[in-house]
Amino acid sequence: MGVPYPRDMTKRVLVPLAEGFEEMEAVILVDVLRRAGIDVALAGLEGPGPVLGSRGSAVVAEGDWDEAAREPYDAIALPGGLGGTRAMCDDERVVEAVRWNHASGRPTAALCAAPLVLARAGLAEGRALTSHPSVRDDLAAQGAAVRTDRVVRDGVLVTSQGPGTAMEFALALAADLVGQEAADEVSSAMCR
Amino acid sequence: MGVPYPRDMTKRVLVPLAEGFEEMEAVILVDVLRRAGIDVALAGLEGPGPVLGSRGSAVVAEGDWDEAAREPYDAIALPGGLGGTRAMCDDERVVEAVRWNHASGRPTAALCAAPLVLARAGLAEGRALTSHPSVRDDLAAQGAAVRTDRVVRDGVLVTSQGPGTAMEFALALAADLVGQEAADEVSSAMCR
Repeated sequence: MGVPYPRDMTKRVLVPLAEGFEEMEAVILVDVLRRAGIDVALAGLEGPGPVLGSRGSAVVAEGDWDEAAREPYDAIALPGGLGGTRAMCDDERVVEAVRWNHASGRPTAALCAAPLVLARAGLAEGRALTSHPSVRDDLAAQGAAVRTDRVVRDGVLVTSQGPGTAMEFALALAADLVGQEAADEVSSAMCR
Repeated sequence: MGVPYPRDMTKRVLVPLAEGFEEMEAVILVDVLRRAGIDVALAGLEGPGPVLGSRGSAVVAEGDWDEAAREPYDAIALPGGLGGTRAMCDDERVVEAVRWNHASGRPTAALCAAPLVLARAGLAEGRALTSHPSVRDDLAAQGAAVRTDRVVRDGVLVTSQGPGTAMEFALALAADLVGQEAADEVSSAMCR
């Protein structure tokens, strides 16, 4: 289930990929973190191979969730998309990994609809969270203090709103893991 | 090689996918255009199947370039990434399609390093273009009037700078094809 960090100089982030994920959100997360020198495990809940996103594009999961989650990691980052979020909420392996990751003090980041996975793991109650507007009522009903900022932090929880905020969300997580200077360099090279 | 538009109510955009493409740029283009109700042909230069991007993620090309380019289309949109751009510049089928598309008055959009493909098609001379900073000298050497705006239009040519400008670039092309109102709705739903 992973061990506490720091493990070595290279940080490692788990990104689960489930059918119906939002393509921009997953790809922006992975690409930005990799540009920051972070090792990203893009792990399919149903194993390696192509996974269909919410707008009909398929991205290739590079590994299997079980294998990827067996190795040490420093953070979990959850892309949104309603179908992908439902699949993560229904997958006890993901929910348990999120719970454990949080309990061990490591960052958990969730975008768009994916903060519902935090709620499913029991992490919404009394927490400052944001999400896509379409799921904010659900989060509030589970006790979250819903915010409308583009990126919201509460302790080691980082949440954000949608594809349009995905880049700053990914850069915020990168800054937490490898420092603001490295994140700023990535931002600049991407012409933000 | 395509026929002039309008063909019917649904617009169709060709997006070539070549090894070394920038993942965020390709996926943002495809996803945003599809959210605007546009039919996007994500066409592999080496046929359908997974294509490796510049940061190690693979996106699945949904069709073959030759077959996709045989059907009528309304615009061509080129994602960047240096490897993918070189492959497009070296592929006479893409260069010729860009030339023909422009000659027939349809939009051609190029992001990041991909404006080099416009230059290869003879469309840079005297044109206002932008690109990733790393290839601006090359564009200038080929006669382009290089600009530093985030999105630049010169007639039916639309160019932009990198992953950080990809969303507004895709929305600009969507607005050209299906109107500003539709593009604004997409933008709002993405939480920009």
